[in-house]
Amino acid sequence: MSHASQFDGLARELAEIARLCYARGWALGTSGNFSAVAGRDPLTLAITTSGIDKGLLEPAHIVEIDDRGRVLRGTGSPSAETALHLAIVRSRGAGAVLHTHSIWSTILSDSVTDAADGGGGARLAIEGYEMLKGLDGIRTHEHREWLPVVENTQDWTAAAPRIETTLREHPEFHGFLIRRHGLYTWGKDLPEAKRQLEILEFLFEAMGRKRGMTWQP
Amino acid sequence: MSHASQFDGLARELAEIARLCYARGWALGTSGNFSAVAGRDPLTLAITTSGIDKGLLEPAHIVEIDDRGRVLRGTGSPSAETALHLAIVRSRGAGAVLHTHSIWSTILSDSVTDAADGGGGARLAIEGYEMLKGLDGIRTHEHREWLPVVENTQDWTAAAPRIETTLREHPEFHGFLIRRHGLYTWGKDLPEAKRQLEILEFLFEAMGRKRGMTWQP
Amino acid sequence: MSHASQFDGLARELAEIARLCYARGWALGTSGNFSAVAGRDPLTLAITTSGIDKGLLEPAHIVEIDDRGRVLRGTGSPSAETALHLAIVRSRGAGAVLHTHSIWSTILSDSVTDAADGGGGARLAIEGYEMLKGLDGIRTHEHREWLPVVENTQDWTAAAPRIETTLREHPEFHGFLIRRHGLYTWGKDLPEAKRQLEILEFLFEAMGRKRGMTWQP
Amino acid sequence: MSHASQFDGLARELAEIARLCYARGWALGTSGNFSAVAGRDPLTLAITTSGIDKGLLEPAHIVEIDDRGRVLRGTGSPSAETALHLAIVRSRGAGAVLHTHSIWSTILSDSVTDAADGGGGARLAIEGYEMLKGLDGIRTHEHREWLPVVENTQDWTAAAPRIETTLREHPEFHGFLIRRHGLYTWGKDLPEAKRQLEILEFLFEAMGRKRGMTWQP
Repeated sequence: MSHASQFDGLARELAEIARLCYARGWALGTSGNFSAVAGRDPLTLAITTSGIDKGLLEPAHIVEIDDRGRVLRGTGSPSAETALHLAIVRSRGAGAVLHTHSIWSTILSDSVTDAADGGGGARLAIEGYEMLKGLDGIRTHEHREWLPVVENTQDWTAAAPRIETTLREHPEFHGFLIRRHGLYTWGKDLPEAKRQLEILEFLFEAMGRKRGMTWQP
Repeated sequence: MSHASQFDGLARELAEIARLCYARGWALGTSGNFSAVAGRDPLTLAITTSGIDKGLLEPAHIVEIDDRGRVLRGTGSPSAETALHLAIVRSRGAGAVLHTHSIWSTILSDSVTDAADGGGGARLAIEGYEMLKGLDGIRTHEHREWLPVVENTQDWTAAAPRIETTLREHPEFHGFLIRRHGLYTWGKDLPEAKRQLEILEFLFEAMGRKRGMTWQP
Repeated sequence: MSHASQFDGLARELAEIARLCYARGWALGTSGNFSAVAGRDPLTLAITTSGIDKGLLEPAHIVEIDDRGRVLRGTGSPSAETALHLAIVRSRGAGAVLHTHSIWSTILSDSVTDAADGGGGARLAIEGYEMLKGLDGIRTHEHREWLPVVENTQDWTAAAPRIETTLREHPEFHGFLIRRHGLYTWGKDLPEAKRQLEILEFLFEAMGRKRGMTWQP
Repeated sequence: MSHASQFDGLARELAEIARLCYARGWALGTSGNFSAVAGRDPLTLAITTSGIDKGLLEPAHIVEIDDRGRVLRGTGSPSAETALHLAIVRSRGAGAVLHTHSIWSTILSDSVTDAADGGGGARLAIEGYEMLKGLDGIRTHEHREWLPVVENTQDWTAAAPRIETTLREHPEFHGFLIRRHGLYTWGKDLPEAKRQLEILEFLFEAMGRKRGMTWQP
């Protein structure tokens, strides 16, 4: 397959995932952004452009960028969080990166503080659920998954290198939360990234609803 | 484009937004009303007629009115809240006005009282969320958005001038709540108004669910 | 229009409402039943037959019955709650009756007890919401709506006369709840009954979610 | 009808149920598995293969297996929980088995402990709801349904015989929960199993939401 038709295929898949996330309430308004690796040598990404209603996102709203975030194909500006997508792809060898703004990830990201957690920064623990097996490499529910919670910023170009380092040091991470902002997860390809997104969102909802109950064990 | 075909386009867009709001549970029964500026000189609005099931709303259910709420085109009565739509368009130069009755805006509107708030009337504060950046002109999550909460009435013609004054005095407002009733928001055009609606409804849901939890920080 | 084609039209409308209620989670499994008056003199009803998956309900699953619940047209057994539909039509002159089993009506029906309410039986009060204006004849949010809560039974033929009497004595009622069971509402025709169903379900959800919060005013 | 065309029919029905469960959020990611008896003598099952996105499940993703879980028709690996499907079919004479991972079954499964329950293992009681009548053989809401809660494991081949024994000893059970994992239910055929699934999920949601409220009776 030519590179151009491969890119077109990724653009169609990304547009479909964007509209699905919008329908589920995980990317309302123009929130959220989504990418997939279009080439490895040199590295290029297919990525959603900013300012598009995710419920109306079409393949034409996807651009191809190089490893510095410059647009190679298509029109529009790539997301302001492009540096994060590139950091994830570089540090994890990911083939796809999904970033959503859901109700439960927003709420859960605010439930963990550095102080309560001791050293190593804020992290959310998810433990003992069968659904954890939907995360790459997890074979049993007897597992404690940690999600780091990163403080929000408006300068991701400055913040991305620190996150890239954390992701290299912690190959066990499947995603991270940004406080009062949302979730980043990834996968070797778009189907794996989509699966991990659904798994993590399910677990956030289950934990969030449980914490709202007085009887919670 | 002729004025007539421009009006037809607005009517189609308004019908689509009405059905979307119905599907999301923000305009059940015949609740909610929606408008867009059809002409500026003289001012005319395309606006939903009252008594229509929003799930079945068609372009034929949109009328054009003048700046006194008189019907110029189409059949049916414009909403009893037409005076509010006109007040918003005049005070903010808005191109579109959306009014919804969602569960979370209804609940949140009832959580703020004058007493608790000191001077200036009841207001809901929303602070520190990334999604705030979906509101026009907001560039960072480090922002506190205020939504005034207006007491409900059945005489909006009488109440609209006071709201128009408030909106002129507070250009920073992106919407307001009516107690136990719902939300008004607007935008320079329908896509911007729709985006702000989704952003505000998301924030209401996140805040509402969090307040229901005993662990809320 | 012939009586037969009028019946066919009602059957199509009833099937559509049944599938909508299923999609909204108000008639899961084979729960819920729906009717509309097909003739007044003598009285006949178009009504859903029992045991049908509401998500798959077709016009062929609607039968016509007389005022004693005997099938005049079509095949299948009318609902075991047919006596209630007839009682409502007779006492209120309703043209359509909708009965749903939603999460929030089930929960709310269990929140009111005789003891707490004093005389007159268990009733749920709904007060001060703009959405109340979606109920027939209500012109302002400054209204307190009462919904009687009837104890559940498996012998509606025996219980229906008491309910018919209550509905004659209280023309102000727009519906009633059956404890841990669901809601009955009605209207002069199917669109009005559907509108009142959506209004009441909205109000149940708003009240139910609010009661789950510690900050509720 | 030939066995092959009967199998094709079951495969289509199973694919439809899988996609419905995905849409309702009961089988996100690749979670959940679904089967139906394809032959009785010898016993064969049509069953979903593992690792498939349930939102994209097609009839081609269904295989036919024998009573030891060996694939007779189609390609792909049957679920790791195949032993449970076979145990249910053998002990209950079920014609269809559905296994879902919903938010509310996950939360409810964690609300019951052996200690609180006395002898006989952990069980969830559901009592007094009209919706219970959607379970096979239940004629009145005045019924207490017990759902056993089984501890989760990653070796269902080892655990299945104990569950098979429990199901033979308790013909009154309509399903069981696996802790922090999900629900198994079944029926004489797929429509009955689907109905019972919807009934149980409804009851979990109603009970879960009620327990989150401080006013719960």
